[in-house]
Amino acid sequence: MNEGIFITFEGNDGSGKTTQIGLLADYLKQRGLEVLILREPGGTSIGEKIRDILLDNSNQGMCAVAEMLLYAASRAQLVSTIIKPALAENKAVICDRFVDSSMAYQGIGRGLGTEKVWMVNQLAIDGCLPDITFFMDVDADTAMARRNAKGEEADRIESEDMVFHRRVYSGYLELAKSFPDRIRRIDVNRNPDAVFAEIRGYVDELLKKAGR
Amino acid sequence: MNEGIFITFEGNDGSGKTTQIGLLADYLKQRGLEVLILREPGGTSIGEKIRDILLDNSNQGMCAVAEMLLYAASRAQLVSTIIKPALAENKAVICDRFVDSSMAYQGIGRGLGTEKVWMVNQLAIDGCLPDITFFMDVDADTAMARRNAKGEEADRIESEDMVFHRRVYSGYLELAKSFPDRIRRIDVNRNPDAVFAEIRGYVDELLKKAGR
Repeated sequence: MNEGIFITFEGNDGSGKTTQIGLLADYLKQRGLEVLILREPGGTSIGEKIRDILLDNSNQGMCAVAEMLLYAASRAQLVSTIIKPALAENKAVICDRFVDSSMAYQGIGRGLGTEKVWMVNQLAIDGCLPDITFFMDVDADTAMARRNAKGEEADRIESEDMVFHRRVYSGYLELAKSFPDRIRRIDVNRNPDAVFAEIRGYVDELLKKAGR
Repeated sequence: MNEGIFITFEGNDGSGKTTQIGLLADYLKQRGLEVLILREPGGTSIGEKIRDILLDNSNQGMCAVAEMLLYAASRAQLVSTIIKPALAENKAVICDRFVDSSMAYQGIGRGLGTEKVWMVNQLAIDGCLPDITFFMDVDADTAMARRNAKGEEADRIESEDMVFHRRVYSGYLELAKSFPDRIRRIDVNRNPDAVFAEIRGYVDELLKKAGR
């Protein structure tokens, strides 16, 4: 239904989303598309302020509902002021995390239930669903080991215990089963070029369908 | 259903909520109650950060859904970490604005509709409704004139045009009709002592019912 092309990347932190987003952006530019790379939470000036609250390690006492609503608020702002206008201008929008993150992290990880999270997020996305979503499939423990190897400081969500991250991963597996047409499960236990070859195949298909 | 007593004040900015909250808090303390005065948005460290985003005049481009979700996020944090524990300890909680503000400002003022706002806020308040709500009834133009007379700088919401503030006021009138048992409409076009005498009457009734 989108005029442009809307692609999102999902998965646990450490699943290699950033590398693949970079490769895909380059590829789409080569194909002549104008590309916009966004990230969640954030991507707007208001959204980045919400991101600061969400990821700040000093905000440990945040309740699950507040967390879910803050992610949705950042998303509503991003969709209405950036994503929808970009798609209307026929651009390719690539977003690092989107509504499925809320379903996996807050719905399953925090235990709020995917129904409540979906209900709130329907208001936030206002019909704007991705054309394709790549679930970067690597189990929570491997993803965490990868992230630790990088030695970056963990934010409030990344600092959660492994029980949480494993629930998030199981949430993604569930989502991939529930939305088989939109969510493509990508095995990322391969070298990045092999991973990208598969992603490119799906995107070529999507571009073909869109007559691009 | 609350163990303690939960009282909220509502109305357009400039309706004299602060004065009456001060008088009521003193009165309840005299009656031997432990009193907690809170304000929305805010009232928690996370909520105050959300308040900064909501009221900052530089955030003019905020979409209505994001605004509504941010208020609800601040409220969820306040209810779960402050209001519910205080009521469980038998305290009297007085809150300057609560869920009815979202109904009037975002539901009616912004035109999101009260159903959507109520749906989201049910998650935020988790069953925690005020025992009594005082709607400080003064029309939007008079309230604005009062506010201007004080010469305080207007925040992002206060800076909205009169059409918006009049819609908010009409929203409060509707809410007062919809929830006649909970919301008491108080004519504030009188001196503060007369206004407080009426409020005190309702509160005495409430305390009597609660066996206090």
